[in-house]
Amino acid sequence: MTNHMTTLPVTHQDLLEQPVVVTIATVSEDGQPYTAVVWRRWDGGIIRIVTDPKTRKYRNIKTNAKVSVTAVDPQNPYRYLVVNGIVETIVDDVQQTTAELDAQTKLYTGKEHYFGDIEPAENRAKATYVTLLIKPARYIKVGSMTSSI
Amino acid sequence: MTNHMTTLPVTHQDLLEQPVVVTIATVSEDGQPYTAVVWRRWDGGIIRIVTDPKTRKYRNIKTNAKVSVTAVDPQNPYRYLVVNGIVETIVDDVQQTTAELDAQTKLYTGKEHYFGDIEPAENRAKATYVTLLIKPARYIKVGSMTSSI
Repeated sequence: MTNHMTTLPVTHQDLLEQPVVVTIATVSEDGQPYTAVVWRRWDGGIIRIVTDPKTRKYRNIKTNAKVSVTAVDPQNPYRYLVVNGIVETIVDDVQQTTAELDAQTKLYTGKEHYFGDIEPAENRAKATYVTLLIKPARYIKVGSMTSSI
Repeated sequence: MTNHMTTLPVTHQDLLEQPVVVTIATVSEDGQPYTAVVWRRWDGGIIRIVTDPKTRKYRNIKTNAKVSVTAVDPQNPYRYLVVNGIVETIVDDVQQTTAELDAQTKLYTGKEHYFGDIEPAENRAKATYVTLLIKPARYIKVGSMTSSI
């Protein structure tokens, strides 16, 4: 059973809150979809994804801001949530992206700082990273089923 | 570390062979990427995905045959494979799609027939389904890492 809706279904809200890696799909200028598996954080409205401006997905969203984010239940691959939306803002503020990266690191690994053991997070983020703010437009939830055809 | 290549990396071949659900990304006419989580089978060259022609992904590939298929290691979400390619053929032969669906059912569930307990697979497939034959063009492998930014 597939359901399309404009508000996040409560039954699948955990897939935006728990430390589940998500697949982000973007589209290049020649119409080729690209996907990557990334961390994300959700604040009840906006989905935040940190990226390096050198990545393909960053170059893609500069010409086409439409994205699709997929979160699959690690315990049940037949339960998943797709969020179609738009990159509304690209935050290139160093402090904000550093804070976001630390928050995601905390969520996914329990550590306080992104790669903090290796080098100061501030230096990493300052050098390259930005935060994509994705505004959801439509949610597609798929529940438990034998196949997802 | 990300690697782009035109041949399937042996280190990630298991992600096309094992019963791992994959995310397929397609693009609609207005440039919106769409994703869905599906079964697939790989024969050493072509990736086969069975779908219902009523789905969004089917409608999308009728106007843009470019797709991206992502397989994430269920044991390690930081190891994954992306296959960018093109839907080269749409098989609408009932027998072929029934056989494909049964083969995928066997792979993913161990059962002999797709939803065989409920109704004959022949009737299901005849009614609606087709098989997408995806020819890979480029592989992107991502290995074990702390984050996949």
